[in-house]
Amino acid sequence: MTIHHHHHAYTTIHDFVSHKHYGWDNALAPIAEVDAGQTVNYQITEASDGQFTKHSTVDDVKNIDFGKVNPVAGPIYVKGAEPGDTLEVEMLDFRHLEWGWTALIPGFGLLADEFENPAIKTFDLTGAHKTEFLDGIDIFLKPFPGTAGVALPEKGNFSVVPPRKNGGNVDIRHLTRGTKLYLPVWVEGALFSIGDTHAAQGDGEVCGTAIEASMEASVRFKLHKGKSIAEPRYEIPGPPTPEADSRGYYVTTGHGEDFMTASKNAIRYMVEHLVDTYKMTDEEAYMLCSIAVDLRISEIVNMPHCLVSAFLPNSIFR
Amino acid sequence: MTIHHHHHAYTTIHDFVSHKHYGWDNALAPIAEVDAGQTVNYQITEASDGQFTKHSTVDDVKNIDFGKVNPVAGPIYVKGAEPGDTLEVEMLDFRHLEWGWTALIPGFGLLADEFENPAIKTFDLTGAHKTEFLDGIDIFLKPFPGTAGVALPEKGNFSVVPPRKNGGNVDIRHLTRGTKLYLPVWVEGALFSIGDTHAAQGDGEVCGTAIEASMEASVRFKLHKGKSIAEPRYEIPGPPTPEADSRGYYVTTGHGEDFMTASKNAIRYMVEHLVDTYKMTDEEAYMLCSIAVDLRISEIVNMPHCLVSAFLPNSIFR
Repeated sequence: MTIHHHHHAYTTIHDFVSHKHYGWDNALAPIAEVDAGQTVNYQITEASDGQFTKHSTVDDVKNIDFGKVNPVAGPIYVKGAEPGDTLEVEMLDFRHLEWGWTALIPGFGLLADEFENPAIKTFDLTGAHKTEFLDGIDIFLKPFPGTAGVALPEKGNFSVVPPRKNGGNVDIRHLTRGTKLYLPVWVEGALFSIGDTHAAQGDGEVCGTAIEASMEASVRFKLHKGKSIAEPRYEIPGPPTPEADSRGYYVTTGHGEDFMTASKNAIRYMVEHLVDTYKMTDEEAYMLCSIAVDLRISEIVNMPHCLVSAFLPNSIFR
Repeated sequence: MTIHHHHHAYTTIHDFVSHKHYGWDNALAPIAEVDAGQTVNYQITEASDGQFTKHSTVDDVKNIDFGKVNPVAGPIYVKGAEPGDTLEVEMLDFRHLEWGWTALIPGFGLLADEFENPAIKTFDLTGAHKTEFLDGIDIFLKPFPGTAGVALPEKGNFSVVPPRKNGGNVDIRHLTRGTKLYLPVWVEGALFSIGDTHAAQGDGEVCGTAIEASMEASVRFKLHKGKSIAEPRYEIPGPPTPEADSRGYYVTTGHGEDFMTASKNAIRYMVEHLVDTYKMTDEEAYMLCSIAVDLRISEIVNMPHCLVSAFLPNSIFR
């Protein structure tokens, strides 16, 4: 048995291998049917789907099979969900396993043109709240799913990589324990899937990877019948980032005629600042931006230029 | 006398009318020369430059003279500042006068195509920490300058509207008391100017105006000799938005092939949510987004789609 039902109280998806998929396709057969109100427990494999281990080196990054990245567990059929409803997914708990990874994957990431070489860094995640990035630099662990979504109304198989109106690979770092995610229901049963679990990430995930880690995850569904939304929404119960906020931020800005240009500049300046100030390589600084620095829109109306701020939390430095 | 020097301890710019300008031009004569370490006090007129009053109606918005908007006080010559230095501007204090305004100005703002009619709302700013937006909704007052910048290296007069590598109309809402702004010095004396003071604003200032308010402002300069930066940076000493954060957020998201599309959608959904939930007009909801909702970049690497989140603080609701 790979799926356990217990008195309709919860469902456990143990066998990730048999219950994963790589694209959004409303013709996929559900791996389980659940009632609203039921807790679903998952064992989720990290985004390389086992291609990386805690001993991985740059050669593993060079040889990665892109056909196997970012699998999601599902789909799960939620009884009673119909097109036009909203599916609430309450994030109950995310318990990461004992290691994680961040990589620079050639051709992928905000500064892909400048970081052409593959790199990988693995993390010890056995600590309760933090992991060491470099001596003197600790990253707060705030586990969440990078990918969570439902089936699209359109027929066909849609890549899991970009976020869509169904959610998907949204990489919203605030989907931590206690947050409620709201997804539009497009097909009967909603067909919910989840994966790409991250132990820590900055808003923007600029190098393209977070601290990617396998996890045990628990979520609970609720249906809002007849409540229709066009794209995902979410609710955060309290201060979103109190640990990161506690000692303030060092912020670089970039302006430009579009947000990609502005964001690239803000991150370039942050990489420069990190390398100058904290003795690390460019590659380490770029990875640190991806797992700990937040991109924020500062200005979007003063044409023809927009402005982006990159927030580095002082609290990561011992 | 319109400029007072007191033992080199501080300089006060009383007469805004005689000491304002509307574009960045490195040929402008300084209105004062100050030493690094000196405090400079300003009396700054709000962005309409007196065209609006606390009794203004929509007719004043219709008749606004765009040639007179967003004046800045300055420029101030900081002794010893040379090209290649960084000018630190410490935000010491911003004391807003007793009223402020927010307007929908046709042709201006993120959703200008949908909000074609002018509108204005004035605010009582006599309270210490909050102002009422509508019955049951209070906005936290966090005063800061929307515009702060130095002369550009290029000759000519450059519009004050867009932010540039010299800073300018950056509308960074975090430049509140205690924050340090770092600006690249391009010309001798730096030629610093400041204006466009805001009593409250969300990240993005989506309708194009914040709570615009005249203020007494105090800043202090410091020079970082030989420290060269390409664009502005800043440092925030503690949690950026503890009041707003305290009770969590309701968040809408928008995805798209570019950040303008994604941001427009996220704000459209937030307007819809506010109108549906809190009994206000579309215009009020759009203004509320501009003064209280933060736009954040959630996802920038999962091509071809990006994702923006619009954060509505629950703490504004009584």
